[in-house]
Amino acid sequence: MLVLGIDPGTAVTGYGLVRQQGSRLTLVGCGGIRTAARQPAPDKLRTIYEALLELMGRYRPACAAVESLFFARNVRSALTLGQARGVALLAAVQRGLPIFEYAPREVKAAVTGYGSAEKEQVRGMVTRLLRLPDLPASLDATDALALAICHCHGAGGGQGRRLLASRRGVRAGRAAWRALKVP
Amino acid sequence: MLVLGIDPGTAVTGYGLVRQQGSRLTLVGCGGIRTAARQPAPDKLRTIYEALLELMGRYRPACAAVESLFFARNVRSALTLGQARGVALLAAVQRGLPIFEYAPREVKAAVTGYGSAEKEQVRGMVTRLLRLPDLPASLDATDALALAICHCHGAGGGQGRRLLASRRGVRAGRAAWRALKVP
Repeated sequence: MLVLGIDPGTAVTGYGLVRQQGSRLTLVGCGGIRTAARQPAPDKLRTIYEALLELMGRYRPACAAVESLFFARNVRSALTLGQARGVALLAAVQRGLPIFEYAPREVKAAVTGYGSAEKEQVRGMVTRLLRLPDLPASLDATDALALAICHCHGAGGGQGRRLLASRRGVRAGRAAWRALKVP
Repeated sequence: MLVLGIDPGTAVTGYGLVRQQGSRLTLVGCGGIRTAARQPAPDKLRTIYEALLELMGRYRPACAAVESLFFARNVRSALTLGQARGVALLAAVQRGLPIFEYAPREVKAAVTGYGSAEKEQVRGMVTRLLRLPDLPASLDATDALALAICHCHGAGGGQGRRLLASRRGVRAGRAAWRALKVP
């Protein structure tokens, strides 16, 4: 099973692809989708959306894992983060991927055994669990890889994961939208 | 000039299409894109995105107007609102529409002459300015129509508007994204 972890952000959206075969986890790819600071917000969103669509089309992961509605410093940064998360979810649902979400504590606990682990500790364990010679080249991808690993661990035991959108939901749940009102 | 006002929201995304000919404003269409409460978040985003794409394709507005990064009650609602706003901006940028944003105070001032006007007053003035026999059938659309009117007024005087994404920006601003790192 190939799992895509996504860590949305306006400046950098991290992604990590992890294959699970039995208890063995392998890194398939990881990196960051970077936007230029000078780009207007809608163009950044388009860059993120199209890069994720391309990634999903190229690697055909079985599912996607994202952080559950996360904590933001303030309302303004929450709005900006929400925009990036919105186009990431849109890309996944358009590719028909089931989407799972995990709380930050769950991710840390799944990777390090400790829900309040520091970033360094998470990074170290991601490296060990994926048997990498070194820390992931792209630090942007650490959280995304941790998310993918968290899903692989949970997918065995089934505990702690929450389904945000299933394949069936994608097909069945489409709401009709009101016809235009032209007086 | 045909202007599309968008008022994004996860449950209802209001839209309003206003045509400006000289100083004359005409309602072309308005309504709300409604999602079902039981739909998972990604499906709601898809519904909003696809409905907006369809609207823009059918009516070919010259530009879109949205509220500037607005105020949300709390971080959680800001994240949810941000997701809806994200897919709305994505749809507009993919259709090559210049996007303008206005602060809530600017919208109220443009429509009623008073930046702290009540909702009722805004609704009344939208009805009068568009010479409607009655309040817009869809209350969902009032804010979207006010946004479109605000842009029409501003487009004459040119003051108060802020360009979020231009046609040129859409073409030129695309950032390359890092190649996948496969160790």
